[in-house]
Amino acid sequence: MPTFPFTAIVAQDEMKLALLIAAVDPSVGGVLVFGDRGTGKSTAIRALAALLPKMLAVPGCPYACDPASPAEACPHCAKNPRPKKSVQVPVPVVDLPLGATEDRVVGALDLERALSLGEKAFEPGLLAKANRGFLYIDEVNLLEDHLVDLLLDVAASGVNTVEREGLSLRHPAKFVLVGSGNPEEGELRPQLLDRFGLACEVVTPTDIATRIAVVRRRDAYERDPDAFCAAHAKSEKALQKKLTSARERLPDVDVPDAALESAARLCLALGTDGLRGELTLMRTARALAAFEGATTVTDDHLQRIAPSALRHRLRRNPLDESGSTARVARAVAEVFPG
Amino acid sequence: MPTFPFTAIVAQDEMKLALLIAAVDPSVGGVLVFGDRGTGKSTAIRALAALLPKMLAVPGCPYACDPASPAEACPHCAKNPRPKKSVQVPVPVVDLPLGATEDRVVGALDLERALSLGEKAFEPGLLAKANRGFLYIDEVNLLEDHLVDLLLDVAASGVNTVEREGLSLRHPAKFVLVGSGNPEEGELRPQLLDRFGLACEVVTPTDIATRIAVVRRRDAYERDPDAFCAAHAKSEKALQKKLTSARERLPDVDVPDAALESAARLCLALGTDGLRGELTLMRTARALAAFEGATTVTDDHLQRIAPSALRHRLRRNPLDESGSTARVARAVAEVFPG
Amino acid sequence: MPTFPFTAIVAQDEMKLALLIAAVDPSVGGVLVFGDRGTGKSTAIRALAALLPKMLAVPGCPYACDPASPAEACPHCAKNPRPKKSVQVPVPVVDLPLGATEDRVVGALDLERALSLGEKAFEPGLLAKANRGFLYIDEVNLLEDHLVDLLLDVAASGVNTVEREGLSLRHPAKFVLVGSGNPEEGELRPQLLDRFGLACEVVTPTDIATRIAVVRRRDAYERDPDAFCAAHAKSEKALQKKLTSARERLPDVDVPDAALESAARLCLALGTDGLRGELTLMRTARALAAFEGATTVTDDHLQRIAPSALRHRLRRNPLDESGSTARVARAVAEVFPG
Amino acid sequence: MPTFPFTAIVAQDEMKLALLIAAVDPSVGGVLVFGDRGTGKSTAIRALAALLPKMLAVPGCPYACDPASPAEACPHCAKNPRPKKSVQVPVPVVDLPLGATEDRVVGALDLERALSLGEKAFEPGLLAKANRGFLYIDEVNLLEDHLVDLLLDVAASGVNTVEREGLSLRHPAKFVLVGSGNPEEGELRPQLLDRFGLACEVVTPTDIATRIAVVRRRDAYERDPDAFCAAHAKSEKALQKKLTSARERLPDVDVPDAALESAARLCLALGTDGLRGELTLMRTARALAAFEGATTVTDDHLQRIAPSALRHRLRRNPLDESGSTARVARAVAEVFPG
Amino acid sequence: MPTFPFTAIVAQDEMKLALLIAAVDPSVGGVLVFGDRGTGKSTAIRALAALLPKMLAVPGCPYACDPASPAEACPHCAKNPRPKKSVQVPVPVVDLPLGATEDRVVGALDLERALSLGEKAFEPGLLAKANRGFLYIDEVNLLEDHLVDLLLDVAASGVNTVEREGLSLRHPAKFVLVGSGNPEEGELRPQLLDRFGLACEVVTPTDIATRIAVVRRRDAYERDPDAFCAAHAKSEKALQKKLTSARERLPDVDVPDAALESAARLCLALGTDGLRGELTLMRTARALAAFEGATTVTDDHLQRIAPSALRHRLRRNPLDESGSTARVARAVAEVFPG
Amino acid sequence: MPTFPFTAIVAQDEMKLALLIAAVDPSVGGVLVFGDRGTGKSTAIRALAALLPKMLAVPGCPYACDPASPAEACPHCAKNPRPKKSVQVPVPVVDLPLGATEDRVVGALDLERALSLGEKAFEPGLLAKANRGFLYIDEVNLLEDHLVDLLLDVAASGVNTVEREGLSLRHPAKFVLVGSGNPEEGELRPQLLDRFGLACEVVTPTDIATRIAVVRRRDAYERDPDAFCAAHAKSEKALQKKLTSARERLPDVDVPDAALESAARLCLALGTDGLRGELTLMRTARALAAFEGATTVTDDHLQRIAPSALRHRLRRNPLDESGSTARVARAVAEVFPG
Repeated sequence: MPTFPFTAIVAQDEMKLALLIAAVDPSVGGVLVFGDRGTGKSTAIRALAALLPKMLAVPGCPYACDPASPAEACPHCAKNPRPKKSVQVPVPVVDLPLGATEDRVVGALDLERALSLGEKAFEPGLLAKANRGFLYIDEVNLLEDHLVDLLLDVAASGVNTVEREGLSLRHPAKFVLVGSGNPEEGELRPQLLDRFGLACEVVTPTDIATRIAVVRRRDAYERDPDAFCAAHAKSEKALQKKLTSARERLPDVDVPDAALESAARLCLALGTDGLRGELTLMRTARALAAFEGATTVTDDHLQRIAPSALRHRLRRNPLDESGSTARVARAVAEVFPG
Repeated sequence: MPTFPFTAIVAQDEMKLALLIAAVDPSVGGVLVFGDRGTGKSTAIRALAALLPKMLAVPGCPYACDPASPAEACPHCAKNPRPKKSVQVPVPVVDLPLGATEDRVVGALDLERALSLGEKAFEPGLLAKANRGFLYIDEVNLLEDHLVDLLLDVAASGVNTVEREGLSLRHPAKFVLVGSGNPEEGELRPQLLDRFGLACEVVTPTDIATRIAVVRRRDAYERDPDAFCAAHAKSEKALQKKLTSARERLPDVDVPDAALESAARLCLALGTDGLRGELTLMRTARALAAFEGATTVTDDHLQRIAPSALRHRLRRNPLDESGSTARVARAVAEVFPG
Repeated sequence: MPTFPFTAIVAQDEMKLALLIAAVDPSVGGVLVFGDRGTGKSTAIRALAALLPKMLAVPGCPYACDPASPAEACPHCAKNPRPKKSVQVPVPVVDLPLGATEDRVVGALDLERALSLGEKAFEPGLLAKANRGFLYIDEVNLLEDHLVDLLLDVAASGVNTVEREGLSLRHPAKFVLVGSGNPEEGELRPQLLDRFGLACEVVTPTDIATRIAVVRRRDAYERDPDAFCAAHAKSEKALQKKLTSARERLPDVDVPDAALESAARLCLALGTDGLRGELTLMRTARALAAFEGATTVTDDHLQRIAPSALRHRLRRNPLDESGSTARVARAVAEVFPG
Repeated sequence: MPTFPFTAIVAQDEMKLALLIAAVDPSVGGVLVFGDRGTGKSTAIRALAALLPKMLAVPGCPYACDPASPAEACPHCAKNPRPKKSVQVPVPVVDLPLGATEDRVVGALDLERALSLGEKAFEPGLLAKANRGFLYIDEVNLLEDHLVDLLLDVAASGVNTVEREGLSLRHPAKFVLVGSGNPEEGELRPQLLDRFGLACEVVTPTDIATRIAVVRRRDAYERDPDAFCAAHAKSEKALQKKLTSARERLPDVDVPDAALESAARLCLALGTDGLRGELTLMRTARALAAFEGATTVTDDHLQRIAPSALRHRLRRNPLDESGSTARVARAVAEVFPG
Repeated sequence: MPTFPFTAIVAQDEMKLALLIAAVDPSVGGVLVFGDRGTGKSTAIRALAALLPKMLAVPGCPYACDPASPAEACPHCAKNPRPKKSVQVPVPVVDLPLGATEDRVVGALDLERALSLGEKAFEPGLLAKANRGFLYIDEVNLLEDHLVDLLLDVAASGVNTVEREGLSLRHPAKFVLVGSGNPEEGELRPQLLDRFGLACEVVTPTDIATRIAVVRRRDAYERDPDAFCAAHAKSEKALQKKLTSARERLPDVDVPDAALESAARLCLALGTDGLRGELTLMRTARALAAFEGATTVTDDHLQRIAPSALRHRLRRNPLDESGSTARVARAVAEVFPG
Repeated sequence: MPTFPFTAIVAQDEMKLALLIAAVDPSVGGVLVFGDRGTGKSTAIRALAALLPKMLAVPGCPYACDPASPAEACPHCAKNPRPKKSVQVPVPVVDLPLGATEDRVVGALDLERALSLGEKAFEPGLLAKANRGFLYIDEVNLLEDHLVDLLLDVAASGVNTVEREGLSLRHPAKFVLVGSGNPEEGELRPQLLDRFGLACEVVTPTDIATRIAVVRRRDAYERDPDAFCAAHAKSEKALQKKLTSARERLPDVDVPDAALESAARLCLALGTDGLRGELTLMRTARALAAFEGATTVTDDHLQRIAPSALRHRLRRNPLDESGSTARVARAVAEVFPG
């Protein structure tokens, strides 16, 4: 069954933009999507996967190394001569199923070879599969904290360091971590929240026409997926093209000092810890500019992306009962009075 | 011993209808049956199993794949040439016994082959057996949350993703999850409740004649099961036929915009999260219409199915002490004033 | 050392009757015996075992299948041709020792064959051994809830479904579960209580002559068991004969509608959940009638068995501080005013 | 180093008598010794061991079966022809060391034979070793409840039923369980207390001469154990002889009805649960009479043994703040007013 | 990707000094860095690693033994003849990844050799790898206490004693333990705190120019790491040289009695437990003097290093609400009034 | 690196005396040292080890049996003919590292021989290594209670009884248990405290000159260990000689009745449980007399050793708020008024 098309998703604009920005610049860090149940969070993420252009990889490399990267990058490429030809593979989007064991996530001793050949070989896990792509965790708040920690660590460093079962190795594991969750089922620790690049909220639409549209499209897709996808093929193609050129344009987008100062002021006004807020604001505003074809980051980019980039970095303020989205909005109004 | 016939069950009409609707359209999602102990919940579910018509399957496929589905659907059919002949098999109804271990549910490494041949083969579990059928959990509220979560995940996606013990595969696992439980023994988390399509209550009849009828029939069945079943063979056959034509008629039942709007209004009035309420109302009303031979969904279908489709999706309202069934009834009266 | 004879047990009439009724009709469900320590609960149960007449079994079948039952009843009989001759075996009474592991209860992978032959064979457990007999658990309230649950499930369905360690099979496991316990050491959950057919209380006799009689008999038995048993051989024989004819007479005992109505009224008066109360009343009254040579169930049978059949099915009533035995007595007086 | 002689123990008469009674009639049940630390509890028990006369055993039998008992008594004797000669072995006194694992207590699969021969053989554990002797647990209150329960179960039935690791067997395990403990470190559950036959208290002597005597003897023993033991050899021999004739005389000691009535009255006055109190009083008074050369149990025997036999069977009485020893004394004074 | 240069780190002077002092004299004990998230703690530590000059090692020795140390120092060098040539290796900086298992930290049985050759060989772990270098733990406060304890033990003694899995050996494990953490996520026990030599705080800069500088440098580095590093190569080289001569000069730095007396007075004024405070003050002041080219420790050195050396050794004083940094400052002012 | 010399330790006289007494007479029981962190507890214990004279042992015996003890003392010497020659070995001082597993402490199945030869052999553990020496546990209060219990049990009986993994054996394990700890990190249970022979406190010196001396000596030692040790060689030799003659003199030291009476009075005055207090007072006063060359124990010896021998045996007295050291001093003043 073909995937539900990204461009057929009704409403939920903040979430869609956050995912597109992470597709333009994976270094913005993970994306956290939280909100009501049944609002199409997982649909959107699976749809993004289908939209991404294919990438070149070293054939046979379990980490799908980029043929343009240095040969010593991974344990496989370091041992094998670099092949002449490359292969085209889809950008991986790896699901972390509920109940996946840590050995399958991190990788583990290859039991088959250990038992039959008495050899200690590494069997790559989901972190290896996700290299250069996306790792998706539904209900990330139900995962054990130490596993989330580990995933964020690897996502941040781009390297998976394995020290277990007599194995000792490192391999590349660059991916965007996408977590979805429902805050009612247990929150993430602030320390974990802060390590996601972007955080966006999704809510149930309250407008009857929108609701009918969602139900109609879902039903149409389920009754005849192929026809439904064909009807959206053109818009999908256009969006893919837009993403590709945004990626190419990204290194040339300028971030003027004024923008950095605005970012710093916003963060000071909100009292976020450390400088991750500013770094993320700079990167996401730049990716947004690139996506929209601009060559310079402006206050407008900063203002639009600020809620997603900052709302999960606020300390609880006992004197300020307003929600974090409102607090970000107030700070934006203060810093950008115009 | 032959199964107690579905048509011999006294009273409990809401539960019987919910099960029949799930038999007409399995995509309505799982059925949750809760209520007093000793009210025949498990009898009804086992009876439904015996009633369902047989289905065609690929011979030798451990997932009982439909010969009409694409060959790459499962790991078995992808590797083996599609055989010329099909077999007729009963629609599976798999019991999840208390104490079943996770490896038997999800499937696991085939220990026998690992030990004797040193080979890493997958041994399908209960999720594989349940494909295209029913998976029944008695006392679903006593199961660990993470296992219920996993079962709902698989039931929703129709795919079992296995990442454990060095195994990494996906296989089809489309089934209706049927859970029964007694809310006094511990409730399901709201997040799990919401993922069941239909929820119905069963209560002990308080009418003496009905009670005597239940005890008499049970005793008659236990003393001479064959004679008892023979006496109900005709009504069973008739119901089976009705189900079969309902399934054929289903794709042609129309859902007018007015029905969708009524569904949306009902959900807004009740404040259910997300759009699962509306999607379920649409699907179950359609299945009900098909079951009753109608070609268009009407307000009547929506009203009748609303309690089962919505009562488990309400948020606890501290200002409204009435039970969820009463609250649904009130919303129905409001939306359908006629 | 021969077993202490059933007919030599002093006092404790309610417990003795409950056990005899379960011996006449095993389908009345398990028997729960609770009360003071040191009141001979386990003696009575072991005594019953020694009293039961032998039964015919398929030779070599680990489930001791009845030669008169269909050949496909168990995994052993399904594979092996039915032998011409039957064997006579004692009705099994299996002790569940404290510390028995779940694999021994349910059955497990036969380690010896797995290690030596690399074969995955099933080694039947205590549930298999108990088929067609009794399974006795001393201090059932100290057992983990999930194990009690499992035992009650199997006892109710008569089938042991095994899904573990790569094994997937079902075998007959029809037995009467007999549990003894001291409510001071932790109660059973109401949901478990309700699934026992009969529940009886034992108390320490306060009459000095009775106490001396108990101590004297116990001492006489311990000092010369053979002589003691010889002295009771005749009464044991007579009781065995009475049991055998009760079993034969059982199918012909009539339960008139009036009796069923009385049973329903009793349960309504006591507000028991579901219809298990009525089903048990009907079955136990019938077994009592058969035991006493009657051909029809009368109000007298119902009244006498009501305390054992219903006292463990009452909901706690905060407005009624009287014990459950007193509450049943009051309901009996109300329903049978004569 | 030879054991400290039993007859060299200073004071602690109640404990010494309780141990001697258990040596005369092991069926009186376990002995529980509790009290201050450093009062020679373990010394006394080890001393008793050294005092007991040797016993005849079947050579090679891991359960040291009595050559006079029936051949089918144990798995070993049932399989092997009974040898012509017997051997003399010391009465075993088995220590249960802290940290002993359950498999060593109950017995377990013989790993060596399983690994080398692929055979499933039983390796007897401490319960087997203790057969016909004593099993000693220091700090019994620190042992896990379920292990104490298991030990009391086996001690009561004289049989060890093994159902684990694919093993299923029974072997004789008749022993006196001797537990010592300090009630300040956590009490035993009343249900466990009640299953010990005798319970005695030891306290630190407060008389300076006695204290010096204890320290002097201990020091003398530690500095020259052989000389110390030689000095007590004669009194040890005399006590051993007294024990042997007490055992022979035991079956002929008479327990008149009046004594049983007194025992029943005592227990009623104290409100002990069940009839274990009376059974123990009868048996221990009889053993005491035999030890002292009497042919009939008298009130004097009952009065003297009552504190040890009953003090651990009292229910906590919120209206009576006096200790259990005082409460037994009061009841004795009431029942035996003379 | 080359490491971010140490000399390019903006602000955070206390942390940088503490790390440099540990590099001059590793015997000052571990360094604990705590403070806000996102303040470059891990960047600084990884940068220090890249800065350290290479060291000479015994080729093939898994502990990288110093060729100048005695041959019996490690299990490897004790067994093998010392090779003629040495090798130059970088000073190891070992990461302890989240989820590293204890066997990989301490070292363990070499499974591969055990399985294939049946030999019991030791496979060195992270403690072996870290010998003569640094062991870095991010979020040290999230590690289990017993593991931190073990690491501090080994770091203090310089020896890893292995007693597990049948292995019994000791090997050198001299390293500086560097832990970073956020006190909001759970504090270390005072007993662990006290065993770190130095403790420094890092805070988010509040000055806008500094913040912009940090973000700019980070961005410049990420966009073109090679160019960025080249721009800092000269300052890196200079710092490395300064470190090398500090190490050479260290043994000749004088600590006059007056300095020791000042150190003792400071510790008495603050009421630190034991003498670790004074020992650390002496050692760190001496290393600071060496780093700055001085030949004698002066009050100035003591005053500057006192906060890092003492702030984690204070007892909580309920009458003094000021932070530990303020309390150290006050004591410094008191002891050094000038 | 040579060990820090015992005679170079500044202050801490009580601890040093306690360790020396245990070296003179190991039967005084373990030594517990508690107090502030960083006060040289572990230094003192390691220094004692280096001071002890070598001992004669049976070559090849894993328990280092004394050639003068009977040959059946240990499993090794019982099987092997006693060799003609003895070897000289240092008195063992075994460290129990944090994280040592129980199997390494107690000894375990030799995995290597089990896997390669299929043989069940015992691999001695740390208790075997410590035989005839010292077993040192740093932070004994952090060890699990059951392990401390086990160690005290073995230390008291001098025998290690192994019942695990199919092994069943006993071997000599006579050692002095030395535990150090900080009472702030969790206290030992009173029951464990009481089983240590001596308990001494160490505190941080508050005198500046002493503090400087400690730091200077420590620094001198660390900078040039060999020179430092050479400077103390003479005093070390003298102390070793004094210890050797004390051991020889010990059996001839007289303990008059008057001394025993004083000991008993002291213990009565303090209300210690049992007679361990008196036994320890007698033994330690005797060892002290022997160490100082006296031939008779006097009140002076008792008074000086009383605090170490008794302070950990007091019950908490709610009416007496003074510390245990003060309470012992008061009792001493009362019993020895002169």
